[in-house]
Amino acid sequence: MLPLGGLGEIGKNMTVVEFDGRIVVVDTGLMFPTAEMHGIDLVLPDFSYLRDRADDIEAIVLTHGHEDHVGALPYVLREIGVPPVIYGGLLTIGMVRSKLDEHKLADSAPLQELPAGEKVQRGPFQIELIHLAHSIPDMRGVLITTEVGSMLMTGDYKFDQTPVDGRPADIPRLAEIGKEGLLLLCGDSTNADRPGVAPSESSVGPALLRTFAQCEGRIIVTSFASNIHRVQQVIDAAVALDRKVALVGRSMRKNFNIASNLGIAKAPQGIFIQPREIENFPDEKVVVISTGSQGEPLSALRRMANNDHRDVQLHAGDTVVFSANPVPGNERAVNETIDRIYEIGATVITAQDAPIHASGHGQQEELKLMLNLTKPRYVLPIHGDHQRLRKHSELAAEVGIDRADIFRGHNGLPLEVDQNGAAFGEDIHSGTMYVDGVNIGDPDDAALRDRRDIAADGIFIVVVTISGDDGSVVADPEVIFRGVAFLEEGDAMVDDLSDLVEDQLEAAAKAGNRESHLIEEDLHDAVGKFVYQRLKRRPMILPVVIEV
Amino acid sequence: MLPLGGLGEIGKNMTVVEFDGRIVVVDTGLMFPTAEMHGIDLVLPDFSYLRDRADDIEAIVLTHGHEDHVGALPYVLREIGVPPVIYGGLLTIGMVRSKLDEHKLADSAPLQELPAGEKVQRGPFQIELIHLAHSIPDMRGVLITTEVGSMLMTGDYKFDQTPVDGRPADIPRLAEIGKEGLLLLCGDSTNADRPGVAPSESSVGPALLRTFAQCEGRIIVTSFASNIHRVQQVIDAAVALDRKVALVGRSMRKNFNIASNLGIAKAPQGIFIQPREIENFPDEKVVVISTGSQGEPLSALRRMANNDHRDVQLHAGDTVVFSANPVPGNERAVNETIDRIYEIGATVITAQDAPIHASGHGQQEELKLMLNLTKPRYVLPIHGDHQRLRKHSELAAEVGIDRADIFRGHNGLPLEVDQNGAAFGEDIHSGTMYVDGVNIGDPDDAALRDRRDIAADGIFIVVVTISGDDGSVVADPEVIFRGVAFLEEGDAMVDDLSDLVEDQLEAAAKAGNRESHLIEEDLHDAVGKFVYQRLKRRPMILPVVIEV
Repeated sequence: MLPLGGLGEIGKNMTVVEFDGRIVVVDTGLMFPTAEMHGIDLVLPDFSYLRDRADDIEAIVLTHGHEDHVGALPYVLREIGVPPVIYGGLLTIGMVRSKLDEHKLADSAPLQELPAGEKVQRGPFQIELIHLAHSIPDMRGVLITTEVGSMLMTGDYKFDQTPVDGRPADIPRLAEIGKEGLLLLCGDSTNADRPGVAPSESSVGPALLRTFAQCEGRIIVTSFASNIHRVQQVIDAAVALDRKVALVGRSMRKNFNIASNLGIAKAPQGIFIQPREIENFPDEKVVVISTGSQGEPLSALRRMANNDHRDVQLHAGDTVVFSANPVPGNERAVNETIDRIYEIGATVITAQDAPIHASGHGQQEELKLMLNLTKPRYVLPIHGDHQRLRKHSELAAEVGIDRADIFRGHNGLPLEVDQNGAAFGEDIHSGTMYVDGVNIGDPDDAALRDRRDIAADGIFIVVVTISGDDGSVVADPEVIFRGVAFLEEGDAMVDDLSDLVEDQLEAAAKAGNRESHLIEEDLHDAVGKFVYQRLKRRPMILPVVIEV
Repeated sequence: MLPLGGLGEIGKNMTVVEFDGRIVVVDTGLMFPTAEMHGIDLVLPDFSYLRDRADDIEAIVLTHGHEDHVGALPYVLREIGVPPVIYGGLLTIGMVRSKLDEHKLADSAPLQELPAGEKVQRGPFQIELIHLAHSIPDMRGVLITTEVGSMLMTGDYKFDQTPVDGRPADIPRLAEIGKEGLLLLCGDSTNADRPGVAPSESSVGPALLRTFAQCEGRIIVTSFASNIHRVQQVIDAAVALDRKVALVGRSMRKNFNIASNLGIAKAPQGIFIQPREIENFPDEKVVVISTGSQGEPLSALRRMANNDHRDVQLHAGDTVVFSANPVPGNERAVNETIDRIYEIGATVITAQDAPIHASGHGQQEELKLMLNLTKPRYVLPIHGDHQRLRKHSELAAEVGIDRADIFRGHNGLPLEVDQNGAAFGEDIHSGTMYVDGVNIGDPDDAALRDRRDIAADGIFIVVVTISGDDGSVVADPEVIFRGVAFLEEGDAMVDDLSDLVEDQLEAAAKAGNRESHLIEEDLHDAVGKFVYQRLKRRPMILPVVIEV
């Protein structure tokens, strides 16, 4: 097996399982860019290993519908090709169909629900999905069996004993797998640093009800749009308190519709109102369920906090309930959003104030339970940064797995396993790809370095026009700049700079230097030096010599 | 009093105290920029209120030497002018002198230590510094008395009963102030959301010693360079374990030297080794104290984590001790640093693993104690985001202060107080200034918008050269681009774009359009539309028409 993403990071999970030249891909996830990735839209695992291998792919299997497990699928289909089949649970397939629709790829994609417990044979692989619990319905672990043995990719899971849909993780089947003999376990490490057991999703509903019952004005709840059971529990609490519900934010409405059409979410007739109708109802009769729990810049809640939402104007008396924790890295954006809401005068309740959130990832006791149930011969922790992969490894050692049989890998490092042993192979090319607009490319693209440079210090463009005959200057040089802070057109410095350029050109003409690229080089250096002396900054200098 | 910074934010604290046309300025702090502020070096409070008021300023008083309280001083002196006197505690003055030296301003600045408890008269103001405890020595509250009464600006404080230097906050004097009658209390709100009492700084030393004693290899400790008592405790632990100490990072060495010269920090002869000597000592005989506790990109520890430090190469067996918590907003950078260290195979110990950090800001019980001791008539919480200002207001109400006497302000909103009452005045111009290189300017500067735009999508520059006589094209158009992702010189799109430009110019010539700015407008729109169709991005389009 070859992890292409998800090791040494939290996100863009993607694993290649290979046997006898044939391939199953488990998950095709993405990550969201940071501000340092200037303008990049999405971050994908570098799946160039699969290029030219389209014909070898027997199936793509998706564990669940979260973006960090399915988000790269449109790009994989576009760049690599369409596999014979794409498997997943019912909601997963529904959400992925909707996503592929937006990319105009749904018609060609062979999406197929594979019920949990049903075994299918694809080439040398027997594939079976195992039902597990997570913060989205229809989460499935993937058991892949070949003639050398079985491996289980857990996907994201928790052992919730009282999940909202009444379907806890299939512990009996996991125990059977342990009895049958599991060669390799690749398990979720996201919460490997947290002791104990994650709280049950169904513990959140009563806490939400208690919290709501104390609110006198409007209630605005924010959570992950894909956490259908959470949204369901918010709706149930609203029903109990005789409040109407408005779903605000595109993904909130989309995901609820998908789940509702599949019978996974339920709401009584007449409970919903349109966002634009909110103002028509008394404050104490309304619950708004909104996107934006991570402080995303364009989300509905962020707009509300900035007084910039079409349908919802926050005011004193409103209570905003964060039924989610900030994902690591989003703390600043979430705190900014919360503080804007305080500034408006509304009240904020977070998971620090009341038990209104439960993580979807199992904690240390659950990871150990998974290890003890499935009794793997070899263990490779996945889905985690290096810190959590190491902690998961330590848990495996604690339950008695031989340290020599516990592998700490990284993206691009294949683990070769058979009945005789397991060992890392040779690193293959792996890493990250960026999506910018419609194009996919390498993060080392020179353009991205240029963006960083211009973003830091701006750009000067110097256009000079010389005669192709004798190199004489035939038009006044133009000095144009963008992104150079606190400098204005007509500033004395710009005049001085124009003089400098003219002096340079005269000197070049006198010296008989008529080669455009030499003139450009001289201008680049002279202008750069001059600008640094004046501004103590190093903007990009772009000289353009036009020969007439 | 008029807060220019520090309300609705954590950082850039600055307050103007005005009476009878005369002014005392308390603190001149700065903030550090976020990634969204493309290339900006520093963020200052907008102190343009003080412009043309230089002659009215009686004194600048600095509570302590942290950047968020003194960092803007060089810019205030440069832009506003030099006041008759700048007061502070011993270490504060020492650190500020070193800072002003770097700006070549130390000679002209009238820096003066004002011992705690000593009263000085400056114009209509009696000024007294009150000793308090914080995460830097020589922290002082500022009591300012005029004929209408007294106000106390607390600065940052905690009621540490066992501070490392044996000098707890001057509670007797605070109690006297309460007896004498305090008109207005402006108190630190940083930890207004935390119940209880902050742990004592001196509780950290024994925890560090216990932690170090379990380390078999090298120990690398990171903390704030200005936390002299923390650095002292690390040195003491190293001495106890017979390890040598290397100070790594410019500010770590600078601050320790200042404190050492003032007799505030002490180390036995021969304990220090140079960073370049580290490799000459056995791993178990070395403690490195390093900057970088906040994951700062250029800090020593970040370089070590990226295998890019001249003197220290991390390896398995090393233990990196984070004796600091991430400041809100720095979580991602700190987590990235920690994960790189895990990847290298070294061990990380943070304040989650052992009590090796203590906040320098008092928590709820301490804020209530300050309120009860000083018995202010009016309260204005400062130093906090809106959430913490509100929580601090609630604490004031809890100890019995009338809600009508508790004010929740914002930057630029003056509070006018005398014996007859207190009320907010009219908002004055306030906000934020940016430092970019040597210049100071407005965040709304067009250049910063340009940086954002170019950083997101790049820039196309189209240079066309036309005859001044008849508008005919006299040289091939040049299409240059920078920061446009995944596009290359010689790409078919660039050729197509050149053709488009030529077509546009021909059409313009035919239509008799010879005005440069009209041609530029047409080119801008046509090129922008073409690029969007191809790339689904909107880079900046910069047409340049040269007339020969």
